[in-house]
Amino acid sequence: MAEATTVSSPKPRRKVVIVGAGFGGLTVARDLAKADVDVTVIDRHNYHCFQPLLYQVATAELSPADIAWPIRHVLRHQANVQVLLGKVEAIDVENGLVKADTVTLPYDELIIATGATHSYFGRDDWAPVAPGMKRIEDATVIRRRLLMAFERAELANDPAERERLLTFAIVGAGPTGVELAGAIVEVAKKVMPAEFRRIDPRTARVILIEAGPRVLPAFPEDLSDYTKRSLEKMGVDVRVNTRVTNCDEAGVDLETGRLDAATIVWAAGVVASPAAEWLGAEHDRAGRVVVGPDLSVAGHPNIFVIGDTACAIQEDGKPTPGVAPAAKQMGAYVADVISCRIKGLVPPPHFIYKHEGDFATIGRKSAVVKMPWMQMHGFPAWLLWCVAHIYFLIGTRHRIAVAFKWAWDFATFQRGARLITDQKDQL
Amino acid sequence: MAEATTVSSPKPRRKVVIVGAGFGGLTVARDLAKADVDVTVIDRHNYHCFQPLLYQVATAELSPADIAWPIRHVLRHQANVQVLLGKVEAIDVENGLVKADTVTLPYDELIIATGATHSYFGRDDWAPVAPGMKRIEDATVIRRRLLMAFERAELANDPAERERLLTFAIVGAGPTGVELAGAIVEVAKKVMPAEFRRIDPRTARVILIEAGPRVLPAFPEDLSDYTKRSLEKMGVDVRVNTRVTNCDEAGVDLETGRLDAATIVWAAGVVASPAAEWLGAEHDRAGRVVVGPDLSVAGHPNIFVIGDTACAIQEDGKPTPGVAPAAKQMGAYVADVISCRIKGLVPPPHFIYKHEGDFATIGRKSAVVKMPWMQMHGFPAWLLWCVAHIYFLIGTRHRIAVAFKWAWDFATFQRGARLITDQKDQL
Repeated sequence: MAEATTVSSPKPRRKVVIVGAGFGGLTVARDLAKADVDVTVIDRHNYHCFQPLLYQVATAELSPADIAWPIRHVLRHQANVQVLLGKVEAIDVENGLVKADTVTLPYDELIIATGATHSYFGRDDWAPVAPGMKRIEDATVIRRRLLMAFERAELANDPAERERLLTFAIVGAGPTGVELAGAIVEVAKKVMPAEFRRIDPRTARVILIEAGPRVLPAFPEDLSDYTKRSLEKMGVDVRVNTRVTNCDEAGVDLETGRLDAATIVWAAGVVASPAAEWLGAEHDRAGRVVVGPDLSVAGHPNIFVIGDTACAIQEDGKPTPGVAPAAKQMGAYVADVISCRIKGLVPPPHFIYKHEGDFATIGRKSAVVKMPWMQMHGFPAWLLWCVAHIYFLIGTRHRIAVAFKWAWDFATFQRGARLITDQKDQL
Repeated sequence: MAEATTVSSPKPRRKVVIVGAGFGGLTVARDLAKADVDVTVIDRHNYHCFQPLLYQVATAELSPADIAWPIRHVLRHQANVQVLLGKVEAIDVENGLVKADTVTLPYDELIIATGATHSYFGRDDWAPVAPGMKRIEDATVIRRRLLMAFERAELANDPAERERLLTFAIVGAGPTGVELAGAIVEVAKKVMPAEFRRIDPRTARVILIEAGPRVLPAFPEDLSDYTKRSLEKMGVDVRVNTRVTNCDEAGVDLETGRLDAATIVWAAGVVASPAAEWLGAEHDRAGRVVVGPDLSVAGHPNIFVIGDTACAIQEDGKPTPGVAPAAKQMGAYVADVISCRIKGLVPPPHFIYKHEGDFATIGRKSAVVKMPWMQMHGFPAWLLWCVAHIYFLIGTRHRIAVAFKWAWDFATFQRGARLITDQKDQL
């Protein structure tokens, strides 16, 4: 009987709840603009963060607001969308309810797009000393530690302590680790030298530690080699085939020995948000919910999981990678499925991931790009990287502001956001 | 014997220590560029903050980095200056030592320019619920509370609670209070409306509470009247002759009754930094060190106190006001005194404050300006305010970035930095 009433006239609109406004969730909301549904987007932050540029916040090039937009501002013109701030804590799949700390939301269709966080492979005690970089707050913590290390070194009298303060260890040589290492070594060698009197910031050591045999493992080998050589030329100490066995406040233990380092950044592993737990669903080793070909959860055709939270096996047997384009494509697919269902059309039967390419900057003037149909490196790749990232920002205001800052700082070797705020964290 | 060695040839350079890199301290350091002295600037922050625009950080128009510069970057070309990060905790006037948490510095000449903080007139328990606005962190706390109030109102079901969340009380109607009230009411009425679904942000109430008989008491009466009328036209509830008797988490008690308000901002009183305590010197009721005509402390001709920390009585019997131009002028005077002493010249006998004028913006398109030789209000005054503040920023990069943001947001009614970060503070 209850079902009968839901189809009575005037037909109530179906409720779509989207948890998380990252690349995936935001795409679903946007693509449902014209669908005859009521959309609620709930996120624990009030902003969408452009994660690929978080490393530039961590290295004082950009301000947090340059890479973040209020979610409700992005979606303000969509009358069928409401945006709510709240941290989801549970999902009642029996009754179709999303339970957040601030509100409980009934849903007909549910999309979980809550992303991933860093994983310490069971050593969560490393988290305070080796912060990862997934959220704005992570980036400002790393920025504070990076800048504070130079300040403390300037004050230090003991040469060993000074050296430790000027040693920066980055664990993990995926794109984030590579980009951070390049940016930090530039800060040390190009931005800081004129400004210190007691230390020479150029003596700073940046060590990029990778357990696997090469940097940028998702790229072709020749680009990995190029990246390693470029980083080394810039002054980064790249150590592949090197496993971290412990992190503490004073440094890291490697299989090959101890490394005293005041600043450690974790760019090694990710683990999905606890969506599998909420849903009681099957998950893989990284905590990602195993979804079917249409990205729905087994037994729940109205619950979709997308982006870094999903383990979506492609036809070649590999899972869809945890990158922004994949999240967007999944979001677009799910919005399409929902739109088709509303209209009584047959939805596309399964999601097909189209790999668009991989980018990584190495430093000023250098990057590597791998597209399915071509690859490139060096200055042209760097220019392409800049253009692509400006393009992917939301809104003309941010595009102009970021392009201006990049151009200015490229010419002057400045960094425009070198603020140490909320010092309680250390010193 | 120790003293004899200090005058042996080659003569060691005199050590000038400047505590605080606000407008005053930074001016001293800059004006000593060519003096034959070793200058050390010590500050508890790594940046100089342009306080007159803090209210724009609090209201999400600008990012912290737009109004702050690393001190060592500003002074990087001055080879005779070193910059150190540290919180001064005591001064040993007997032995000429500045004692900070990070370092102990000997001085020949000492300049204290540590500014002021908000005063709750003995009710420091109000501080957590009614933050003032003197530091970057204060502004981001206020920004978070302002934005969070709208988010929580959108989630609230109880109409009274919703109304309380959308009530903003600003205590004190000097320039900071006026500027904040105008900016908050604009956010509520112009920026937010399109973006909320359950609440109408235009119903927000902004109440400006002033104990004295008029707003902007430092301005001529007709400009005060103009400001009050303008604010009221914009929708601000201006209450003069109204004293706050208590602040708590739920609102403020006024002599005239209770006001339920989720967000309270304190712009009422200031108290000087504890320099008088460090020096064991005479101070006025606001904690400012009483200085002589040459800004030195009685009995210590080599210790100067400038800016908001100093009580410098002018020839007309009034103390120099606690404004940025006064701090800069005092800094320039002290640098001149020190330079003259080094060169064996007779320094100018006493500091003379030259009042340059007062500015206050009321909102977009409106401001009041009072110069010694003219006064103006409305749109021309607002344009002058904009030009003057861009001019006073440090460096072309910041000038361009801020001018661009102002122009863009003026045209679009956007606010570019609407991020709620570090949510631990509330919700």
